[in-house]
Amino acid sequence: MSAAFFEEARAVVPMVTGEACAPYESDILEMRGKAAAVALPSSREEVQRLVQVAYRHRVTLVPQGNRTGLVGGAVADASGRQCTVSFSRMSRVRAFSAVNRSITVESGLRLSELNRFAEERDLHFPIDIGADPTVGGLLATNAGGSRLLKYGDVRRNVLGLEVVLPDAAGTVLDMARPLRKNNTGLDLKQLFVGGNGTLGIVTAASLALARVEKSRLSMFAAFRDYESAAEALPEFESAFGELLGSFEIMAADALRAVLEAFPALSMPLSPTCAPCFALIEVASAMPGLGAMFEQRGLETLQALSADGRVVDAALGAADRFWRIRDSLPLAAVREAVPLTFDVSFSRDALVPFLRDLGGWLDRTHPRLRRYEFGHFGDGGCHVIVAIPHACAADYPSMRQIALRSAIYERVMAHGGSFSAEHGLGPINMAYYRKLTSPSERATSAAVQTALDPQHVVGRCRYF
Amino acid sequence: MSAAFFEEARAVVPMVTGEACAPYESDILEMRGKAAAVALPSSREEVQRLVQVAYRHRVTLVPQGNRTGLVGGAVADASGRQCTVSFSRMSRVRAFSAVNRSITVESGLRLSELNRFAEERDLHFPIDIGADPTVGGLLATNAGGSRLLKYGDVRRNVLGLEVVLPDAAGTVLDMARPLRKNNTGLDLKQLFVGGNGTLGIVTAASLALARVEKSRLSMFAAFRDYESAAEALPEFESAFGELLGSFEIMAADALRAVLEAFPALSMPLSPTCAPCFALIEVASAMPGLGAMFEQRGLETLQALSADGRVVDAALGAADRFWRIRDSLPLAAVREAVPLTFDVSFSRDALVPFLRDLGGWLDRTHPRLRRYEFGHFGDGGCHVIVAIPHACAADYPSMRQIALRSAIYERVMAHGGSFSAEHGLGPINMAYYRKLTSPSERATSAAVQTALDPQHVVGRCRYF
Repeated sequence: MSAAFFEEARAVVPMVTGEACAPYESDILEMRGKAAAVALPSSREEVQRLVQVAYRHRVTLVPQGNRTGLVGGAVADASGRQCTVSFSRMSRVRAFSAVNRSITVESGLRLSELNRFAEERDLHFPIDIGADPTVGGLLATNAGGSRLLKYGDVRRNVLGLEVVLPDAAGTVLDMARPLRKNNTGLDLKQLFVGGNGTLGIVTAASLALARVEKSRLSMFAAFRDYESAAEALPEFESAFGELLGSFEIMAADALRAVLEAFPALSMPLSPTCAPCFALIEVASAMPGLGAMFEQRGLETLQALSADGRVVDAALGAADRFWRIRDSLPLAAVREAVPLTFDVSFSRDALVPFLRDLGGWLDRTHPRLRRYEFGHFGDGGCHVIVAIPHACAADYPSMRQIALRSAIYERVMAHGGSFSAEHGLGPINMAYYRKLTSPSERATSAAVQTALDPQHVVGRCRYF
Repeated sequence: MSAAFFEEARAVVPMVTGEACAPYESDILEMRGKAAAVALPSSREEVQRLVQVAYRHRVTLVPQGNRTGLVGGAVADASGRQCTVSFSRMSRVRAFSAVNRSITVESGLRLSELNRFAEERDLHFPIDIGADPTVGGLLATNAGGSRLLKYGDVRRNVLGLEVVLPDAAGTVLDMARPLRKNNTGLDLKQLFVGGNGTLGIVTAASLALARVEKSRLSMFAAFRDYESAAEALPEFESAFGELLGSFEIMAADALRAVLEAFPALSMPLSPTCAPCFALIEVASAMPGLGAMFEQRGLETLQALSADGRVVDAALGAADRFWRIRDSLPLAAVREAVPLTFDVSFSRDALVPFLRDLGGWLDRTHPRLRRYEFGHFGDGGCHVIVAIPHACAADYPSMRQIALRSAIYERVMAHGGSFSAEHGLGPINMAYYRKLTSPSERATSAAVQTALDPQHVVGRCRYF
């Protein structure tokens, strides 16, 4: 199939094969595959024609952005029979409206490029994550980030999509009008947001932009314990309402790991003064609220300090605080094999989960290190369970899988999600099959079969 | 079929038939149908068993809330073969969490009841509409309302759903966990939000609640023209950022109609002083911002007044301003046959559309009155074209339909939506077939066929 497909495909879209595929065959996680070929379309029409050829030859296309995904969903599998579709040549801004605060872009535009364009116009796309994915990647995973509490996930900020369907004709769903309200039938675009690169190929998106923040307060607080931090969250919401943008928890162990890994980073508070810390940020696009934020912040911290829940606190240096926060994932994986978890809960279930997990790991896996941090404000939590190289031999891959499974079982027992904002891909498909209800899987599979009966697009099959 | 279905159904769920169906056979629009029977389930299990019976007998079920819909989607058709499912007995609050700011309720709970419960806890469900639909109705239409700019539509505030699928078993999709992030496969619940009562029967929903607003400023401004009002919108966003909650436009003609219909209402500004007016509201759940809002509001209005865009303005009386706004729809339909339109656009296309529509109506239908008002802030606009009783004879129903079609063609030509927030039902299905692209209809039909092959639920078929 490969040669015939390749010959026909390269007549309609630039293609590379062989050695030239290498840069597209692994991602940031070092997930590796073997692509039959890589297509490099530069227009929707080329994507359409490629889909027509792929449909005829029953080749699966794997859309790929900037390869920053954390579930392996954008690299071809090891079969050598899948064709990667790189969006590196589709990154135009098609339309922008200051009045509508909207932008229509091709899927290959990177988040950083999008925000450079927007910020020059005093606007931004308010998804704040460490990586620099393409718009297509943001859509596929429905990314969240550090300011979800205030701005929501990608879904909330999508106004429209243009999609090429994986049918014989490469039918286009032109739903890219930048409308904030449109209830004229099923809202089909929702299927492709958080669609993990399946069901269709998103070629362009209309996004809502927010005004750049003009008033801001950053606080770094040390809490007596997780319970105190969890109780403080509603206090900050009471003080700041919807202007509370971030409430990021960091365990003392995680903070200590940052200090060891990056000794040049200056810590606002000593990691030994408390078991857990929070980076709390308040912001508004309304100018002139800074002084009021600071006064209210001090009052809130003092009240929490008076009853012993807050042990110490610092105000001010947003950049420095965020550098610490953003260094956590790297610091936590030093000199260890990391098992990373991106989970979420109802906010009242977060601390009970962490207590349960911590107790169980301490009892059953005392030599493993554990780093907890993340977006408490939206119920999210990252957990990195680090297997020190010294005991790596005791944790062969089957034991790692069993450990991961056991942790996910605990997540589900606390009513949580096993993939809060990383989406679904080869890395966690097995857990999807195990942890998602049969009725949800069957319904998802029915939708996928209806839209993509031949499996022309994406790594995930939902059955 | 009717008798056998009824016998089996009433063995599993309370049913009424004949005369007793009358209260369920018409809605607020006086859409009338003839129900074979009305089911009155009080639990998810009863809904499941009803679906099993309906599936066997190939009877279509029509879910019904408080009958406040504006597209006729919740009443059985005239065939006498459809069975209405009233949610009047399913209105329990299943779970509430202050820490998570979430509530899980059955679909029959009314918006007013939901907000009574929430407001006692200093929270609210921030969908602000004139009617009092059930949660199921809000979900079916993905309602928006007067504060969409700030709080988004219903979709944005849904955390989870419980759905009974229209298959042989009445399979339950239990997706009601109140999670703010969960990307573990297709987000199936999105299909049922704005689903117009099709694809499945929503029995319960988990909703995010917002903190009650503590700071507020209401302004009522008279603008030189629509263009000036449209230009002022970004100015207010620049002054207040995301705290701008409402920007509601009212044409002078609409305001005059309110004054004539409700002379007791006191007007903040004379309807003769300008061609268009706006109710502008700024609000936050952060307490203590009122004085700063007022100062900034005055500055903004003064700047707009200095260059002549704002002609006059009043500050303060929120309740009085909203009473005027909320009286508009009733005032506009007095002594006339109303054709109502609920349309939306990219914000920069709103005024060009209104100019185009106005010019065309003045030329071709000079005896009709026209009332424009609505949610400019989110690109929405209500237009009521009123046929005075005096010339009703010149507008038989075929001519009304032609007029409506011509207006919708103009909406589409300006890149708009023909149903911004009223959803889809028997009233506008013909326009769906005419104005929605064949590819979107075919895809929606494929999804519907996959989930509901026998047409067991809802009024709309998407082919």
